[in-house]
Amino acid sequence: MIVSSEALELHKKLRGKIAVQSKLALTTKEQLSLAYTPGVSQAVKAIVDDPKQVFKLTIKHNTVAVVTDGSAVLGLGNVGAEAAMPVMEGKCMLFKEFAGIDAFPLCLKTQNNEEIINIIANISPIFGGINIEDISAPRCFEIEEKLQNLGIPVMHDDQHATAIVVLAALYNATKIVGKELKALKVVVVGSGAAGVATIKLLSRVGIKNILAVDSKGIISKNRKDLNSSKRELVVITDPQDVDGDLQAAAINADVLIGVSTKGLFTQNIVKSMNPEPIIFAMANPDPEILPIDAKRWGVAVIGTGRSDFPNQINNALVFPGFFKGLLENRITKITPEMKIKAAKALAGIIPHPTANNFIPSILDKRVVPVIAGSLRPPPSHRV
Amino acid sequence: MIVSSEALELHKKLRGKIAVQSKLALTTKEQLSLAYTPGVSQAVKAIVDDPKQVFKLTIKHNTVAVVTDGSAVLGLGNVGAEAAMPVMEGKCMLFKEFAGIDAFPLCLKTQNNEEIINIIANISPIFGGINIEDISAPRCFEIEEKLQNLGIPVMHDDQHATAIVVLAALYNATKIVGKELKALKVVVVGSGAAGVATIKLLSRVGIKNILAVDSKGIISKNRKDLNSSKRELVVITDPQDVDGDLQAAAINADVLIGVSTKGLFTQNIVKSMNPEPIIFAMANPDPEILPIDAKRWGVAVIGTGRSDFPNQINNALVFPGFFKGLLENRITKITPEMKIKAAKALAGIIPHPTANNFIPSILDKRVVPVIAGSLRPPPSHRV
Repeated sequence: MIVSSEALELHKKLRGKIAVQSKLALTTKEQLSLAYTPGVSQAVKAIVDDPKQVFKLTIKHNTVAVVTDGSAVLGLGNVGAEAAMPVMEGKCMLFKEFAGIDAFPLCLKTQNNEEIINIIANISPIFGGINIEDISAPRCFEIEEKLQNLGIPVMHDDQHATAIVVLAALYNATKIVGKELKALKVVVVGSGAAGVATIKLLSRVGIKNILAVDSKGIISKNRKDLNSSKRELVVITDPQDVDGDLQAAAINADVLIGVSTKGLFTQNIVKSMNPEPIIFAMANPDPEILPIDAKRWGVAVIGTGRSDFPNQINNALVFPGFFKGLLENRITKITPEMKIKAAKALAGIIPHPTANNFIPSILDKRVVPVIAGSLRPPPSHRV
Repeated sequence: MIVSSEALELHKKLRGKIAVQSKLALTTKEQLSLAYTPGVSQAVKAIVDDPKQVFKLTIKHNTVAVVTDGSAVLGLGNVGAEAAMPVMEGKCMLFKEFAGIDAFPLCLKTQNNEEIINIIANISPIFGGINIEDISAPRCFEIEEKLQNLGIPVMHDDQHATAIVVLAALYNATKIVGKELKALKVVVVGSGAAGVATIKLLSRVGIKNILAVDSKGIISKNRKDLNSSKRELVVITDPQDVDGDLQAAAINADVLIGVSTKGLFTQNIVKSMNPEPIIFAMANPDPEILPIDAKRWGVAVIGTGRSDFPNQINNALVFPGFFKGLLENRITKITPEMKIKAAKALAGIIPHPTANNFIPSILDKRVVPVIAGSLRPPPSHRV
């Protein structure tokens, strides 16, 4: 476990975790004349004549915006734009260090959806992709949906990168316990951005018995307090019209997926699950159950979202490689098929998974090329 | 002179002139735990508790946005957001190479003033300063004015950095010809952003005889076609109620300042000026008069805006050091006094100016620290 003062000292020392770099030293008048005035006007004219040249002559082909309004940062909630910055800078570091992508944080002062949509659309010319980050549900769904026709991919990472990494982990965890994926009973606890996207993706691969639980209990059509995104979920998750609390939901569950709150998965809950239970406890920074307790209470496969615990099931395994694939193939819209391909590719890195090793480390150099490669169209479709 | 294909080749080779850099290698789980999750939450909490910590724990203290809508790029006009990018990237290179400032380009799709103002206000949390760039006049004046209460400095570089470098050049040019600054007759040709700001600053240091000329001739109160910013100028520039064309304006002028169009300063115009004429021909990329012609026609002091001609009077001499001073002293609003101090400091780098050497080179290492230093408050005022 990390001493918190050490993390704060590092941030003080670095005073910003990323920097902008000039790719060319400017030490002669000739360099200035070529890269700046008057030479730069040649590049301007080339793009005026052929707008697609922007991908050949500028940073656009490899640059991603990490955009947040600071409304749902880590487990800390609505901390605002300034306090969100260390997280967004961290994200940009990961983009660079793992995938060689130039990412820049944009923390917005407004939390008005219409303004956020307008801003993202208007800053899009310089970016090859937009990573939406830590915007609260259900607002994040509308924002992402309304930005799907920008001509560059717009992905709310908390939703889709989480869904992809969960599906990858589940592919391998079911191998370990010898259960069939489509026959699993899965309970997803937490129905914010990550929960909703995970349920949708698990349903897409054919899992039929999924229950969604929020702080008020099982999300069912009998509930009167559901927002629009939760009402959409009921169609997927409520085939048997079940009501009750988390404890009730967990009875005979094969898989418990937490994207919710610290310490929520108690011994009673774990004990009521089917034999060989699988638990992904991804609340950040503190998981729903500690690995040490999970093992003591008989959990067969346990993963969390933390870097300092084993088996880290974190969206950081996905977004660098996934965006690399999006940029390399100039993909403009993300489909469920792309997410499933990425999950399979990620799981495939570990062909013989065990309880101690079923998901690659974020530091595994194979992860990014394998995920990026999964987005490459078959040879006949290439441009 | 530069071969244009060479500049285009360089842009193709670099494919973007700047990059984002991670300040810390991420090769161990411990580094990830400190810089990203869970450690990053300590930095988030520190900023929630004390918002000023954003200057200590993030990139804000040293980061500038270079924002344009692509409506007035170089001499090329309204080329739009994408085609403006090579220029904005070039600007960011200069910020980094000359002043160590991390600058990032934001090229906006909208050319609606209200939207631009809203976007800049909303992206301001992560930046220590905003450099507005290549937005057409008179729209640029309103945009800059309405953003003066953001809590960080917002400067339209084309206006103020140009005005400062012109004033610096004029301080030294008058020394060369032995004329008194306040007694000069100055004609400013071009009344866009740069022209308007230059006239205002020259008037502020006590020059009374200034004429402004646009494509229709002298800007006088008899003109019916003036926009709001030009109507404001008349108060400064029209004491004697003069009408006429550029030729008429140039009669008995001591100084001709061009921020207009290629080749506008003909032999007839130069010949009608007072003895020992001073000309700053700053149209970009092609000046109003070539230095070789100016010398042949008897001009005493000639400067242009180009890197590949001698005596470059370009705003690039000012903005890196000026923003460095703004950031270092956490200045929130720019005053005319700051601009005059910066101009004096820049001129002072060459204590004995001559016609061949009256303004330092952009590559002169003294420029940035001297200009930044001019913004330092006197010891008694320091916080």
